[in-house]
Amino acid sequence: MENHRTEITNDIAQSIRNFLNGNNYSKIAVICDENTEAHCLPKILDALPEHYLLRIDSGEENKHLGTCEQLWMALTEAGFDRKALVINLGGGVIGDMGGFVASTYKRGMDFLNIPTTLLAQVDASVGGKLGVDFNGYKNHIGLFAEPQTVLIDPSFYSTLPERELYSGFAEVIKHGLIYDHAYWDKIKSVDVISAKWSELVARSIEIKKEVVLADPFESGKRKILNFGHTLGHAVESYFLDKGEDRLLHGEAIAVGMICEAYLSYKFTGLTTDELEETVTYLIKIYHPVAIDKSLFDEIVGLTLQDKKNEGGRVQFSLLNAIGKCQVNIPIYAPDMLDSLFYFNKLVGSN
Amino acid sequence: MENHRTEITNDIAQSIRNFLNGNNYSKIAVICDENTEAHCLPKILDALPEHYLLRIDSGEENKHLGTCEQLWMALTEAGFDRKALVINLGGGVIGDMGGFVASTYKRGMDFLNIPTTLLAQVDASVGGKLGVDFNGYKNHIGLFAEPQTVLIDPSFYSTLPERELYSGFAEVIKHGLIYDHAYWDKIKSVDVISAKWSELVARSIEIKKEVVLADPFESGKRKILNFGHTLGHAVESYFLDKGEDRLLHGEAIAVGMICEAYLSYKFTGLTTDELEETVTYLIKIYHPVAIDKSLFDEIVGLTLQDKKNEGGRVQFSLLNAIGKCQVNIPIYAPDMLDSLFYFNKLVGSN
Repeated sequence: MENHRTEITNDIAQSIRNFLNGNNYSKIAVICDENTEAHCLPKILDALPEHYLLRIDSGEENKHLGTCEQLWMALTEAGFDRKALVINLGGGVIGDMGGFVASTYKRGMDFLNIPTTLLAQVDASVGGKLGVDFNGYKNHIGLFAEPQTVLIDPSFYSTLPERELYSGFAEVIKHGLIYDHAYWDKIKSVDVISAKWSELVARSIEIKKEVVLADPFESGKRKILNFGHTLGHAVESYFLDKGEDRLLHGEAIAVGMICEAYLSYKFTGLTTDELEETVTYLIKIYHPVAIDKSLFDEIVGLTLQDKKNEGGRVQFSLLNAIGKCQVNIPIYAPDMLDSLFYFNKLVGSN
Repeated sequence: MENHRTEITNDIAQSIRNFLNGNNYSKIAVICDENTEAHCLPKILDALPEHYLLRIDSGEENKHLGTCEQLWMALTEAGFDRKALVINLGGGVIGDMGGFVASTYKRGMDFLNIPTTLLAQVDASVGGKLGVDFNGYKNHIGLFAEPQTVLIDPSFYSTLPERELYSGFAEVIKHGLIYDHAYWDKIKSVDVISAKWSELVARSIEIKKEVVLADPFESGKRKILNFGHTLGHAVESYFLDKGEDRLLHGEAIAVGMICEAYLSYKFTGLTTDELEETVTYLIKIYHPVAIDKSLFDEIVGLTLQDKKNEGGRVQFSLLNAIGKCQVNIPIYAPDMLDSLFYFNKLVGSN
């Protein structure tokens, strides 16, 4: 695990050329969506030899086995063998799903990840978690496997909608909160629109790699990365099929971090000041709105299907302090509900 | 890879108890089909604590993603988490597919394999190859992963149809041909109906483990296990949906071994006497019938989609002598056709 190379580059085409020069693939497929085909593919086209372009529709709603079957079929029809390469050009959906498709095609072929969003660069690009959603459950079917290489070019997100950039920034914030107080202090001074991203991305990837290396299969320490994600994923799942009300991943995680900061205050020693500092900043950045309290039971119910839940209880990763996180804190439904009420009160409604 | 335990036992219930005593699973599911539910489950029921029985329809024709989705759904609805266990009780289809389902459910849970056929015990139980068929291609979607433990009880196949026993025996024959001349000599004296199986199964598993350990991801040496399987798989694939004409796996592999023994004679040094000895024995055991020559082109075409084919050519594993096999011999369509004509001439038709 985690023995692949991550390269932060400002010349993505040259980095691709270097990678391909060091290998000898029988065929190459590029998986993209309509956005990365329009905005990102032109930046790398010069570096690509003859290849198959496999375009899927963008969006989490297409991250399912049906899309995988289309991709497996396309690879089959093009006669791909195990010495071929898949290049995943896109955000987290393409990275997770394209990696899963490559890792299970004829029991596994190489794949190269070129994450094109901040979120995918600081989160999905490290850790080897691959897979697809299944019947409304996020990443329910998947496996752990590593790309050959990850190429990171922050210039890709000059074409991202602002909202997507903020969504990715939630993971950067999380890295500070769970692991590095100094980084958190630096993050707070960042202007998201004009940030010097390569430094931030480098530090975030470094943190995530350190955590993942210590626990590649998520049996212990790695779970600190789940801070904000237990309730955050439930909120995200709930709103997954809600059309315009849909929350982006980072927006849902921001809600989750607020709720779980409150649980950290209640159970694992986060001080009142630290709670205040954390939630004030998250509200300033994300302006979250209240959740109708009639939905609370369903959201809490969704956490029971979370992969981090084992044997009936729901295990949270909570902060002991800013920069320090503890795993396997069992939390029961009433306290989860309490944290959602706290969230609503904080953002001013219901 | 290959660090799991294989236990040959004559008290399967006690072996299951021992395994479960050493672990602490949150839930247990048993995957079976109508045959293993009727004939094998009763032998282990005493040893099982509370569990979910997931019954699928028997047969290779059900080894596809649709059945996987049913199983993933059943695990989801029963609230299985990553600390739960799947027990695969059945032949190769259940082992390959149940292992794939377990390895990809929430990115992987433990599974215990209890292969109930000779074929599954000497072949699928070792090597970590998991997966399902896809659009007519065998094992096209899958991965490498290991069960926690494999429990082998030869008494299970007292209830097998004779034809199934002979099917499994083809892999035993292969192990002798590719790896161990003395074992081949012993095999030739075996009466399939009254054999002392535990010794033979033990030696076959030992051979397969030695080969797999040397090359867990099938990049080189392991491919000797493919002897008989390149044309054999193509023949098997062709007859997959042909109803009553369907060949069992071992029956197709016997055809493949005859053709590939001929190619070994032609290209890799198998002597006339060795060819004669090999094909005479295979014909005596399997009584194969001729294949309509109008199908030859299609069968050869199917080898081009075989996973062992890389970059356009078809790589065969062929015998240098009885007990010695060489990998990566490129063979072209005309020679494959030639071997099919040889087969037909030998078995006396067309």
